[in-house]
Amino acid sequence: MKIKKKCLAILGSTGSIGTQTLDIISKFSELFCVHVLSANSNHLLLFEQAKKIRPKHIIINTDEGYMFLKKNLNRTVTRVWKGEDTLCELISEKVVDLVVTAVVGSSGLKPTISAILAKKDIALANKETLVVGGKIIMDLSKKNNTQIIPIDSEHSAIYQCLLGEEKVDIKKLILTASGGPFLKLPQRKFVNITIQQALNHPNWTMGSKITVDSATLMNKGLEIIEARWLFDINFEKIDVIIHPESIIHSMVEFNDGSIKAQLGNPKMSIPILYALSHPKRNKYDDDILNLHEVGSLNFLKPDFKRFPHLKLAYEIGKVGGSAPCVLNAANEIAVEAFLEKKIKFTDMIKILKKSLENFTFVKNPDLNDLIDIDEETRRVTKKIIKTL
Amino acid sequence: MKIKKKCLAILGSTGSIGTQTLDIISKFSELFCVHVLSANSNHLLLFEQAKKIRPKHIIINTDEGYMFLKKNLNRTVTRVWKGEDTLCELISEKVVDLVVTAVVGSSGLKPTISAILAKKDIALANKETLVVGGKIIMDLSKKNNTQIIPIDSEHSAIYQCLLGEEKVDIKKLILTASGGPFLKLPQRKFVNITIQQALNHPNWTMGSKITVDSATLMNKGLEIIEARWLFDINFEKIDVIIHPESIIHSMVEFNDGSIKAQLGNPKMSIPILYALSHPKRNKYDDDILNLHEVGSLNFLKPDFKRFPHLKLAYEIGKVGGSAPCVLNAANEIAVEAFLEKKIKFTDMIKILKKSLENFTFVKNPDLNDLIDIDEETRRVTKKIIKTL
Repeated sequence: MKIKKKCLAILGSTGSIGTQTLDIISKFSELFCVHVLSANSNHLLLFEQAKKIRPKHIIINTDEGYMFLKKNLNRTVTRVWKGEDTLCELISEKVVDLVVTAVVGSSGLKPTISAILAKKDIALANKETLVVGGKIIMDLSKKNNTQIIPIDSEHSAIYQCLLGEEKVDIKKLILTASGGPFLKLPQRKFVNITIQQALNHPNWTMGSKITVDSATLMNKGLEIIEARWLFDINFEKIDVIIHPESIIHSMVEFNDGSIKAQLGNPKMSIPILYALSHPKRNKYDDDILNLHEVGSLNFLKPDFKRFPHLKLAYEIGKVGGSAPCVLNAANEIAVEAFLEKKIKFTDMIKILKKSLENFTFVKNPDLNDLIDIDEETRRVTKKIIKTL
Repeated sequence: MKIKKKCLAILGSTGSIGTQTLDIISKFSELFCVHVLSANSNHLLLFEQAKKIRPKHIIINTDEGYMFLKKNLNRTVTRVWKGEDTLCELISEKVVDLVVTAVVGSSGLKPTISAILAKKDIALANKETLVVGGKIIMDLSKKNNTQIIPIDSEHSAIYQCLLGEEKVDIKKLILTASGGPFLKLPQRKFVNITIQQALNHPNWTMGSKITVDSATLMNKGLEIIEARWLFDINFEKIDVIIHPESIIHSMVEFNDGSIKAQLGNPKMSIPILYALSHPKRNKYDDDILNLHEVGSLNFLKPDFKRFPHLKLAYEIGKVGGSAPCVLNAANEIAVEAFLEKKIKFTDMIKILKKSLENFTFVKNPDLNDLIDIDEETRRVTKKIIKTL
């Protein structure tokens, strides 16, 4: 029996999750085909990917990239495009079964909405989409009867633990956090943290933005807000536990006291494959976890004092409305500034708080409100950084 | 809305699992009622239970107990009976919804079969039933469309991890074992192990037979065979890992490399409640696990050399047919002899091997064959012990 291949659109194909998704697809070429690849600016890598995978369409955001690709992919099967509007059209084409959103930051919001409106299932690696527009996205997804399958290892773990269970039986979602490279660093030393130190994550190899977020625990903060929307659950029912080995990817505690956990090596291959394969599982032997080789799994309470980003994310998540949009945009700008050596590690939290003070609260923002607030936050945050 | 109570028959109500089951029922008296309680010989405790719970029927195996109960429960709602045949009739009565089999050893086999023939669901705490008659029981259960829900914490864990999953996706069942009190004892010291040492389990409070089985790892060996039948899976796909804290109760590894685990404190309350409540979960707050308080979970490979019972159970499980029946009966007698100070700790494995050598192999034993083999094994094993 010949199985119809699942046809994918991959947004952010040159990033960390994007390239790992293509690795998985190349191992399962009998199951998946690629209709669209999109990238922000890395046209050289997108060119290599297009040559290898031969998708129907590729899209880039820069003029330079567009010119390069247009010229060099002439006379191939792949058509070259530019810009978000075209992207939204292409991922809505009938042939697409699943849209993988692996872009960084809030730029995932608009294409995700287009995909849902076109009734596409989403493999979601872009947590900022739910942080910023969680309510809009989940309402739309329900209305259009589409599935949102998380790629984030924590949310994939929770998703798997909830299979066959009733929502009413959930007592708590317990997200595990490695604690990042500064888990044991005394607070007084945080001010001198360098970029190199912040990018040196103990377990995970990821893009630089998310690696800095992991060092501040802001990544876990964003994941709490992502979980709130993805699993439609109150913040009071979302806990974080520090688990330095990143082997238990997350857990669900049920009302009867039973806890279920999903485990794996700290690699993205299994959650990516799971999201692509859902509702099936596909045989994969490359990343087998041997617990007796790991030896020991450890757990401790998160320290909100040394990691104020996590506390702030809980607070802002509970405030809701436009507040998480501001938090997320300000954080993107603050991380960027830290990576450009414009500010210190400890300046990031100050900048977030100042940015949040600057904004009027909108209770039920629509998509346009959120896009405006996102842009305005970036502008204001850059100004705050300059006057620091 | 008034919920119809689930009506239970509890076999072995005076044992460790039996009394814990009654504790759970007393906390959920709006959900469960008791139709039958049975015990082997502890008539004093059965008397107390009957006064408190007021079941319709109680059954005891001893003449002395029967006389005592008959006399002292005169003029109450509870009728007193004696013997296995009556037990099998009573648990088959129409009003019974679920039969809890918490007896010790292979004596659980016949009543379990009666209950299945009467189309009752089974909450199974008596692993020996599946060790001895796994094929018969599971075939019957399929034919009569009854559910067998495990109470053993390991099997309950696996059962929960398999919810919402496909059997074809299972790569491995991974049973955790505490390793018992002699996990780190050098082999040369095993010969001098006392009863008190063997009964001093680091994590679990259980009956004496299963506690000795935990010290030899025979308990894990029996659980492997139980799992083979309960989940209809090859021995090649059943692993054991030592996990001294007994917090992860067991795991399932899927074909895509994802591992799911169920966690809880090393107490039976949650697995018992789960088996009674299935397919629902009921709210229960008494045994909450806090992983940050536990701090650390450790894992190591089992040592087949110091724990030859485990290796033997794998071998005999694979042989199948009548062999596990012989293993189980010989083990019951050997443990009994150890508890009566007739033999040394290290004699138990020798006795098992000798008993196994003595038996002709029956490939597809029926119930009567198994009962005969069981009795004959006990007789022969006692003789082996005498001539040791």
